[in-house]
Amino acid sequence: MDLFFHPSSIAVVGASTRKGGYHLIRNLLFGYRGAIFPVNPRYSTIEGLPCFPSLEAVPGAVDLAIILVPAPAVPAVLEACARKKIRRVMIESAGFAEVGETGRAIQDHCLEIARRSDIRIWGPNCMGIVDIPGRHFFTFMLPNVYENAIIPGRISLIVQSGMLSAAFIADVMGNQGIGIGKVCSIGNKADVDECDLLRYLLEDAETDAVALYIESFPRGRLFANIARSASKPVVVLKGGKSSAGARAAMSHTSSLAGNSRLLDGVLEGSGIIHAYDFHQMVDLARALSANGDLAPECRTAILTFSGGAGIVSCDLMEKHGLKVAQLSEATREALADLFPEWMPVANPIDLYPAIELHGRLSTYDRAISIVLKDRNVDVLFIHYVSGFDGKSLDLSALKKRADEHGKKVIFWNLGHREPTMTFQLQAQADGIESYGELSRAVECLAAAARYREKKHRKRLPS
Amino acid sequence: MDLFFHPSSIAVVGASTRKGGYHLIRNLLFGYRGAIFPVNPRYSTIEGLPCFPSLEAVPGAVDLAIILVPAPAVPAVLEACARKKIRRVMIESAGFAEVGETGRAIQDHCLEIARRSDIRIWGPNCMGIVDIPGRHFFTFMLPNVYENAIIPGRISLIVQSGMLSAAFIADVMGNQGIGIGKVCSIGNKADVDECDLLRYLLEDAETDAVALYIESFPRGRLFANIARSASKPVVVLKGGKSSAGARAAMSHTSSLAGNSRLLDGVLEGSGIIHAYDFHQMVDLARALSANGDLAPECRTAILTFSGGAGIVSCDLMEKHGLKVAQLSEATREALADLFPEWMPVANPIDLYPAIELHGRLSTYDRAISIVLKDRNVDVLFIHYVSGFDGKSLDLSALKKRADEHGKKVIFWNLGHREPTMTFQLQAQADGIESYGELSRAVECLAAAARYREKKHRKRLPS
Repeated sequence: MDLFFHPSSIAVVGASTRKGGYHLIRNLLFGYRGAIFPVNPRYSTIEGLPCFPSLEAVPGAVDLAIILVPAPAVPAVLEACARKKIRRVMIESAGFAEVGETGRAIQDHCLEIARRSDIRIWGPNCMGIVDIPGRHFFTFMLPNVYENAIIPGRISLIVQSGMLSAAFIADVMGNQGIGIGKVCSIGNKADVDECDLLRYLLEDAETDAVALYIESFPRGRLFANIARSASKPVVVLKGGKSSAGARAAMSHTSSLAGNSRLLDGVLEGSGIIHAYDFHQMVDLARALSANGDLAPECRTAILTFSGGAGIVSCDLMEKHGLKVAQLSEATREALADLFPEWMPVANPIDLYPAIELHGRLSTYDRAISIVLKDRNVDVLFIHYVSGFDGKSLDLSALKKRADEHGKKVIFWNLGHREPTMTFQLQAQADGIESYGELSRAVECLAAAARYREKKHRKRLPS
Repeated sequence: MDLFFHPSSIAVVGASTRKGGYHLIRNLLFGYRGAIFPVNPRYSTIEGLPCFPSLEAVPGAVDLAIILVPAPAVPAVLEACARKKIRRVMIESAGFAEVGETGRAIQDHCLEIARRSDIRIWGPNCMGIVDIPGRHFFTFMLPNVYENAIIPGRISLIVQSGMLSAAFIADVMGNQGIGIGKVCSIGNKADVDECDLLRYLLEDAETDAVALYIESFPRGRLFANIARSASKPVVVLKGGKSSAGARAAMSHTSSLAGNSRLLDGVLEGSGIIHAYDFHQMVDLARALSANGDLAPECRTAILTFSGGAGIVSCDLMEKHGLKVAQLSEATREALADLFPEWMPVANPIDLYPAIELHGRLSTYDRAISIVLKDRNVDVLFIHYVSGFDGKSLDLSALKKRADEHGKKVIFWNLGHREPTMTFQLQAQADGIESYGELSRAVECLAAAARYREKKHRKRLPS
C-alpha cells in the first residue's frame, strides 16, 4: 500500500487544462515533491509541466498512474500501465459498476488486466488520497477546497464518498478547526478496499485513530479481525442501514449493503465504535485517540462557570452511564477557601461566585490545581468561555499537569467566533479535546470510558 | 409584565464605577432610550450620568428599579421602592434562598414587602432581561459579551441560568449565527416565574417560539395549561433530571427539582417539545417556528452533492420515523434530462454527476425547480457547500418559490468558516433553516413533523 501514498513519480492520464484533469495537476503541484507526468495527446504542457501523448512516451519509471479518462477508455490505459510496469493505478473516473451492467463489465475487464499484470487498482469512481500532513492531494477536487484551510492532524479516514475527502474535510478543518491526517476515498473498491487500508493505517506512524464511512463490508469477517487486533481506535459509520439508504448505496458505489443485522453480528466484539453521523464520527475518533485509555469508572469533576450547565452536564452524564465524582474531603476544604463563605462546595463545581471574588483565570487556575490532586477524580470536564477578556488558560501547562496526575481534561468551549476557534486550535495543539456542544462532549467522554472495556471484551474467546 | 420589558425610566440601585454595577450602566447606555438613574451615595456621576444618593433623591417617576446591592441590604431598598411607588423591581444580586436558610429569610422578607406594596419582583439571583431586537440589556454581564455580536431574531428564552443570557447567547449569535429575541433570566423566581413570562412571550408580537431552561416547575399544572393553549412552539430543557443534577439545582437556584416522572405526567399532552441540551434547544425552537406547520408525513426529497450524505440522510430519517419521498413520474423524467445518461434517477437525488455537466448553481437551481413542482414532496432537504466558487444560491427567491408551492426547505450547510457563516445569516434572513450537522438537521425536521400531531393530540379530552 505504501507506494500509493508515497510514490516517487506519478503519471496523470487524462491531465487537462480544465475541470478535474486540471485540478489534479494543480493539486499535485501544491505539495507533492516527486516527478509529475501529465499524459494527454492534446497538450504539450500543462501548468508548465511537459505533457506526454501517451504513457509509453513518459521517460523513466512511474510508481503510480492516476486515471481520469472516461470508463470505456480505461482498459486500454491499464494495458499501457502493464507494459510500462506501473504497479499502482488509481482510477478516479466514474462510469463503472455503479452505473449498471455495461460499467460492471468494464470494471471486471480492468480487474482482469490488473490481476494478470500484478497491478493494484484503487477505485474506480473515487477521489483517491488526501494526505494533509504530507500535503499529498492525489485527487481532482477543487484546489480551493483545501487552500488556506489545512490543519494537519492524526485522525485518518477511509471513505466511500468523495464528499468526505473534499467538502467535509474542508468543513472539519476550516470550520471546526479539527486536524486531519490521511483521507482515502475508495469508491467502488474493485481491488484495494477498507481491509487493505485499515491494515495500512493501523501501522501508519502518523495515524492515531481511523474513522471509516463504508457502504458495504464484503470482507466483513476479515475487517472484524483486523479491527479486533487493532491497537488504535476504529470508528465506523455504516451507510445504507435503512431500506432507502441501502437502495441509494447500490447506485452510489455499487454496494450491496446487505443484511444489517448479520453485519452487526460479524462486527460485534471487534472493538469497533459505531457512529451515526459524519461530524460525530470524527469527534468520536478524536475523543478515543486522546482519551481511550480512560478508566471505565470515569469519575468526572465538572468545573463550570454556570450552575445550569453543571446541572445539565449531570443529567447528560447519567443518561450516558457516567459518574459524577465524589470530591475528597481535602478538595472540598481547599475549594471552600476559594469560594465565598455562603457557597457550599459540591460537584458540579460552580466557579462563578469565586470568579466574582478572584477573577476568571485565577479562579480557574486555582480550582483546576485543587481538583487535579483529587484521587477520587479521573476526568476534569471544564466549561469555558473564550475571549471576552482577551485572556486564556495556559493549555499546554494544564495538559502537562494533568498528565502528571494521570488525569484527563476535556472542554466545553463557548464564545464569539474567532476566540472559540483560537481556543480549539490551541487545545488541539496541546492534545486536549474541546467541544462546542455540551451533549457531544458527554457523548464522546462516554465512548472513551466504554472503550477500554470494549477492547478488553473483544479479547475473550467467542 | 410589559413594564419590565419597556420601562420609561430605570433606577439602578448599586450602580458603580466597577464590576457588575458598572457593567449594568454601560449595558443600559448601549441601547436603552429611557431615563437612567444610577443610585449610590459614593458617586456623584457614573459614565456621565448624575448619580443619586438614594431612591428618594431620584427626580420624577421610576418604572423599574434594578437592584445590585448585597442581599441583606435589599429589604430596605424595597421599602424605599414602595415609598417611591416603584411597581417593578428586578433583584439581580445573589445571596438569597440559594445560599440557605438566612438567605431564604431575606427572600421571604422581600416578598412580604412586595406583596403589601403591589410590587412585582423579578429574581433574585438572576441576570434580568436581554432584548436583542430592542437593544435592552437590563443585566450586569460584561458588555463585550454582546458588543459586535448582536443578531436579532424571533426565538425568545426563559432561563434559570445567567450563563444562558450571557455566554451562551454570545455563542449562539456570534459563533453559530442564530438570531435571538428576548432572554429572560429569572434566577430564584421568587415572584415572576416561567408561567408569567411564558404567557407574556406567547402574546409578544416579536416572538415566534419560546425556549425554556427551567430547574423546577412549582406551578407545573398551570405551566402545562399555558403551553397547551399556546399557538407558538414551546421547547423545554428541564435541568435536574438526574439525582446529581437535582442536588445541584437545589444549590443553584434553590430549585426542588422534584419527581421527574410526576412532572412528565403533568406536562404530557401539553404540546411541549423536550430538549436535552442548550444548543439543541435553540435549534428545535427555530425548526418549529419555521416548519411547525409541516404535514406529519413530511415526504422529503434529499438533494445532495454527495451520494454518501444522501445515504446517511436516509438512515437518519428512518431512525427518526421520517419518509423519503417517492418522486413523481414527471419529476423523474425532468431530472433524467438533467442527469448524465447512465445515471438512474432516485431519491436521494445525487446532483454531483449533473454538476459536472452543468455547473453547480445551475444544477441546484434546475433540480430545485423540478422538485418544487412534485406533489409527492413536502420538504426539500438540500445539502450544500458554501463558498468554494464564491457564488451562492438566491435564497430569497428560493424561499418565495417554496412558499408558492407550499413546500418547506431545510439546508445542511458545509464549507469554510466565513462562507458557512455568511450562508447561515442569509438563510436565516430569508426564513430558511440551515444546520451544520446532518443528524441535527434530521432531528429538527422530525420534531417539526411530529409537532402538528402533538399539538392536535393535546386538544383531545384527557
